[in-house]
Amino acid sequence: MDFKAELGKRHSFIEERLKIAIPDVHGPHGILFDSMKYSLAAGGKRLRPMLLLEACKISGGDIEMAIPFACATEMIHTYSLIHDDLPAMDDDDLRRGKPTNHKVFGEGIAVLAGDGLLSYAFETMLEASVKSGGDCMRCLKAVNEIAKGAGVFGMIAGQTADLESEGKKIDEATLEFIHMNKTAQLIIRPMRAGAILAGASEQALEAITEYAKNIGLGFQIVDDILDVVGDQEKLGKNIGSDVENEKSTYPSMYGLEESKRIAFEKIERAKGAIAFFGSKAAFLSDLADYITDREF
Amino acid sequence: MDFKAELGKRHSFIEERLKIAIPDVHGPHGILFDSMKYSLAAGGKRLRPMLLLEACKISGGDIEMAIPFACATEMIHTYSLIHDDLPAMDDDDLRRGKPTNHKVFGEGIAVLAGDGLLSYAFETMLEASVKSGGDCMRCLKAVNEIAKGAGVFGMIAGQTADLESEGKKIDEATLEFIHMNKTAQLIIRPMRAGAILAGASEQALEAITEYAKNIGLGFQIVDDILDVVGDQEKLGKNIGSDVENEKSTYPSMYGLEESKRIAFEKIERAKGAIAFFGSKAAFLSDLADYITDREF
Repeated sequence: MDFKAELGKRHSFIEERLKIAIPDVHGPHGILFDSMKYSLAAGGKRLRPMLLLEACKISGGDIEMAIPFACATEMIHTYSLIHDDLPAMDDDDLRRGKPTNHKVFGEGIAVLAGDGLLSYAFETMLEASVKSGGDCMRCLKAVNEIAKGAGVFGMIAGQTADLESEGKKIDEATLEFIHMNKTAQLIIRPMRAGAILAGASEQALEAITEYAKNIGLGFQIVDDILDVVGDQEKLGKNIGSDVENEKSTYPSMYGLEESKRIAFEKIERAKGAIAFFGSKAAFLSDLADYITDREF
Repeated sequence: MDFKAELGKRHSFIEERLKIAIPDVHGPHGILFDSMKYSLAAGGKRLRPMLLLEACKISGGDIEMAIPFACATEMIHTYSLIHDDLPAMDDDDLRRGKPTNHKVFGEGIAVLAGDGLLSYAFETMLEASVKSGGDCMRCLKAVNEIAKGAGVFGMIAGQTADLESEGKKIDEATLEFIHMNKTAQLIIRPMRAGAILAGASEQALEAITEYAKNIGLGFQIVDDILDVVGDQEKLGKNIGSDVENEKSTYPSMYGLEESKRIAFEKIERAKGAIAFFGSKAAFLSDLADYITDREF
């Protein structure tokens, strides 16, 4: 099977599981579940759950045990988008071509839907762990990894730094901090969780961590580049104006060519790290290439 | 030692632990920690952590092991207040006589501070569980209890129903649903968590659950009554006007006298349930009385 077909197959598998991850609930709190399901069903690459499951698989683990953790990771990603889109944050009306959660359900429910997805992510992992009869220390450590990735030294730290940097000129260290925490942590920690559930060795965990960090950073740099290229095409705006506007991105800080070079370098490092797993790493290696295989 | 002195001693003990529960952090995400600490330090009765620790103690458990869970419970209670005070929710400028989180730090940071406290609550419990070397299945079950109490079938369900009921006439079942979920669940589940950490029997757990449910509901009814009595004294408004305004509270639905009777009945039921523990239940029994021992 070629990579694109394999990617599609895994994407569909995760979509099916996400569809049943949150129950249908009626009654005075019915709208909470409607709003959670609305945003969770709104699409996306499902990269984070896919990576968690693959890290579990190549570490010799049982995919079925890891599925609640994969769904939980996507719930956490989705909650962060709902809160990020709020008027008090990025104030976005559209997300993936659809009205954002607060545009459909109102701001109050959108705050609660985000809170609900974060809470239910933990409940999903913990309930599955209690019922699994598996290795409960592995489960505790895996949930803890996800908590750290999502938390105040992970994703929320990155979002805070991002919010605080709006309209300010930031230095390279701060830009790195934002990318590392806002994007990479919720790729690193879920992959580590998948591997921990499988009982991966320290060496295997290190290889997965290095891979995840580099595709996370590479992915974010490519996104920054595509934003600029898109802007240039659409607006005829050139890179210099971004620098003048103090919009802090890789292209505005390092220039377009150097940004591309750094992105490719990260992807190569990721592939080098995951080679630890030999032929089992084929999908993850192809996935790393796929990230830079978008036109720019 | 008399009850008030004992209450004060336990309150001080929890305050000391809460002070060191969240680290001082500087850097691009420093403001996140400042805002989390601001609200967590803003005072309150600390009823939830106190009850969790007591449930652990009377079940024969080690208080030290339960402290991270007690702090986490207060973090969750605090996050719910921060989000509840947002303009999109109750739009409150003051909380316990101090400016609300979003008034001090802005709405964006207040959303993130709430998210951060919820996430860090789980991280605190999980990190302590991983490091404790204790019974990891008990830890998993205890964290799961807290997750359920805080979650979409617990506190968030109650907040959703409350938000959806604003300005509407609701029936008795919906009012009961709101009290049970918005208030009682985050008393029941933390107490169960404390008992589970101690390895409590099913019978002991049932007694604690019944106690917690009844003081949770009793506490909320008393709060409703005090609101009305306070309003009457301040505004000369009488109960009838509340009914006409369709403000759904116990007094507006059942009348003042009947509400008092129901509150006392709940407190008696709580004391009856906790009598299971014999003389060990003295503090919890006094605490139940203390709840209705406010002037009305």
